[in-house]
Amino acid sequence: MAKMTPRTLSGFMELLPAPQQQMERMMEILRSTYSRYGFTPLDTPVIEASEVLLAKGGGDTEKQIYRFQKGDADLALRFDLTVPLAKYVALHYNDLSFPFRRYQIGKVYRGERAQRGRFREFYQADIDVIGDGKLDITNEAEIPSIIYQTFTALGLRRFQIRVNNRKILNGFYAMQGLTEKSGDIMRTVDKLDKIGPDKVRVCLMDDCGLTDAQADEILKFIAITGSNSEVLSALEDYQGKNEVFDQGLSELQTVVKYLAAFGVPEENFAVDLTIARGLDYYTGTVYETTLLDHPEIGSVCSGGRYDNLAEYYTDRQLPGVGISIGLTRLFYVLGEQGMLNSALPTSPADVLVLPMTSDLAPAIQLATDLRGAGVRTQLYTEAKKFKAKMSYADKLAIPYVIFLGDDEIAQGVVSCKDMTTGEQTKLPFDETLARIRSGLAQRNKGCVIVEQ
Amino acid sequence: MAKMTPRTLSGFMELLPAPQQQMERMMEILRSTYSRYGFTPLDTPVIEASEVLLAKGGGDTEKQIYRFQKGDADLALRFDLTVPLAKYVALHYNDLSFPFRRYQIGKVYRGERAQRGRFREFYQADIDVIGDGKLDITNEAEIPSIIYQTFTALGLRRFQIRVNNRKILNGFYAMQGLTEKSGDIMRTVDKLDKIGPDKVRVCLMDDCGLTDAQADEILKFIAITGSNSEVLSALEDYQGKNEVFDQGLSELQTVVKYLAAFGVPEENFAVDLTIARGLDYYTGTVYETTLLDHPEIGSVCSGGRYDNLAEYYTDRQLPGVGISIGLTRLFYVLGEQGMLNSALPTSPADVLVLPMTSDLAPAIQLATDLRGAGVRTQLYTEAKKFKAKMSYADKLAIPYVIFLGDDEIAQGVVSCKDMTTGEQTKLPFDETLARIRSGLAQRNKGCVIVEQ
Repeated sequence: MAKMTPRTLSGFMELLPAPQQQMERMMEILRSTYSRYGFTPLDTPVIEASEVLLAKGGGDTEKQIYRFQKGDADLALRFDLTVPLAKYVALHYNDLSFPFRRYQIGKVYRGERAQRGRFREFYQADIDVIGDGKLDITNEAEIPSIIYQTFTALGLRRFQIRVNNRKILNGFYAMQGLTEKSGDIMRTVDKLDKIGPDKVRVCLMDDCGLTDAQADEILKFIAITGSNSEVLSALEDYQGKNEVFDQGLSELQTVVKYLAAFGVPEENFAVDLTIARGLDYYTGTVYETTLLDHPEIGSVCSGGRYDNLAEYYTDRQLPGVGISIGLTRLFYVLGEQGMLNSALPTSPADVLVLPMTSDLAPAIQLATDLRGAGVRTQLYTEAKKFKAKMSYADKLAIPYVIFLGDDEIAQGVVSCKDMTTGEQTKLPFDETLARIRSGLAQRNKGCVIVEQ
Repeated sequence: MAKMTPRTLSGFMELLPAPQQQMERMMEILRSTYSRYGFTPLDTPVIEASEVLLAKGGGDTEKQIYRFQKGDADLALRFDLTVPLAKYVALHYNDLSFPFRRYQIGKVYRGERAQRGRFREFYQADIDVIGDGKLDITNEAEIPSIIYQTFTALGLRRFQIRVNNRKILNGFYAMQGLTEKSGDIMRTVDKLDKIGPDKVRVCLMDDCGLTDAQADEILKFIAITGSNSEVLSALEDYQGKNEVFDQGLSELQTVVKYLAAFGVPEENFAVDLTIARGLDYYTGTVYETTLLDHPEIGSVCSGGRYDNLAEYYTDRQLPGVGISIGLTRLFYVLGEQGMLNSALPTSPADVLVLPMTSDLAPAIQLATDLRGAGVRTQLYTEAKKFKAKMSYADKLAIPYVIFLGDDEIAQGVVSCKDMTTGEQTKLPFDETLARIRSGLAQRNKGCVIVEQ
């Protein structure tokens, strides 16, 4: 028979078993952290009606989307988790209680140009808090705490949550009479890290058409750095000139004020006036998160406050705040940087049971007992030489191999080999189990991400 | 602005938060049970190249498939998890160790006619053990144990794992000289439950063209029922006439022999000679699982042994055994039957913290401490009346509400209301936490499925 060469599409992540185990750990940490903050899991369809998904319309999104006909239906694959959330909240409004807090970890699809480290199918891990009409600022103050707990639980220490407020930016540009140019200016300021302040100044004047004095004002503003209190105090100098600015500053002060109570250390947080996060969607606090030793990766967790989640579906005002982790890309980058903890178990089983008798019942009973005790156990019964069986355990990095022969059965013990140390014991089941459990606890101690 | 009416496509399950929590519980049970048997999680793309996915070609599958062009690429959404597994194993053969044991819980797509309880996007939860060239019969004997543990962990007691062996059927038909008609006969026998033995007899003669004697032989064969040992002993009467039959009987004997060691009670297992599970794919043991009180649902977990997983992709012989749970349909049916345990918590949080002071720091610190202790906590800070806040907790079925006012702060206590009993305590944090924890343990005690 002619064979079809098996392949996986480029831009689609398909992991081998060991890295998949690491990915699963990361997902489990996200699920449990998000749950601890009172977010409920959602799972919306991957396919939606194109007209629903593209209600907002326009732009790059539409070009990248996977869209197709099935029968009479014009369908599309979701390209983020925000549009499906907007649809969900508008559709199920009467069945939800607000604020509505949900998390969703799911695959999204974008037909981008194939490129190393870029994915066409990738996981996003989103949380959002949606208010009905209003949403208290404390929700915005809580987000850094969720980011901090999530990345700490993953094992990161050297990261910084950078926060700004769009009202401060909008108010500041209004003060300067630059509201109409604010989009261009923000795009230019966004290049600060890459091209430096001098070139930003040139661009502001040449490309955005700012005067010398205006460019100076902007450079002075984005040069405001330092500790949180230093930045806040510098911002107070602008107070009283513009209502929107003042409101933004007050919101930022609230976010900073409650940091300690929310358990976020100062060193993991910075007010950063250069952050804007896109142009029209966000309206209040905005967030980016960078790894201090890997600034080249860019933000690994971003989001912000918005005023109108579902304006394309409903007249109701549904303000919200949310963040998103691009999980597939983060996982890929961590792997590239050697930051995935290879010391953590990635084997499919904790124990491989090798029966050494022709009647398999005692070995099967042993495997059943181990499983009953919560130990991930594989029974190996293939007709192979002993060496091949041990090499199988070795290749899969299964930490313990248990042998059960007539001698052991007669003595009421099991032989157990620790595959890391090579140490072999011959002990009753309970003692073997205790030894395995404490060994596994030890092996599972680390975090999934390690910093060098 | 003109609004787009939000809608979810028909045939796509989109759950409200409370049932979604129940679905998550079921998935978590599947993940942990499969893991305990030494299966490693896999996650393959939802989209594959059409030529890869349809290498086998033909039939209803191709009509139902979601297939589309993107640029030059001819793409399709997976319609099961078996074809992607075959591709995965053939593609990554050199990186895998055999037997390769994987589980995958993922969405698959079939553009079936929309119908109540039928889904176009649905979860399958699959496990498979793949051998390289050979695969020991013990793997087939282990499957009932996995099914038993999975359904027991979900909360079911009254279910039966029905097992047959295709070699027994093929051998039996060969003995009768009916090998060529075996497909038609099996399809007819499959209707036994619905139409009864008399009509099966008529169909066998009229539609399959069997003689009176042949039809008698078949009815006699499928009438073999009783305890496992009774069925096996009746089958022994046919022994020695056909090699394939004898091998199948020996395999079935092995499966039955090790049941007890694998922890499967007799009452949850039955040899059932009427089960065939399709025509050409399965070659050895086949499995179906039925809910005794709901036979109308059909099999909720099915599968079997096959000899050639990836024959369309590779010359290598890759035999395997696997089972699949149609999770979305199972969940739907359980809901329809009122079998989902509504006593289990489905709230997004265990505790709602209501600050009663203008400085929120103490309440935020309390929420941080509760989260640190692993309690799912929501901080409620919206400007609403007290009654509206309590009604929010009530609607979401959040079990505990904690109030923190100046009095409590001065006294170093927190006020905590048990929303089920109405009981309210004013105790130090640690005592409140202990009370909440024991209450939650109590509330989480039941299983996700309840039998009436």
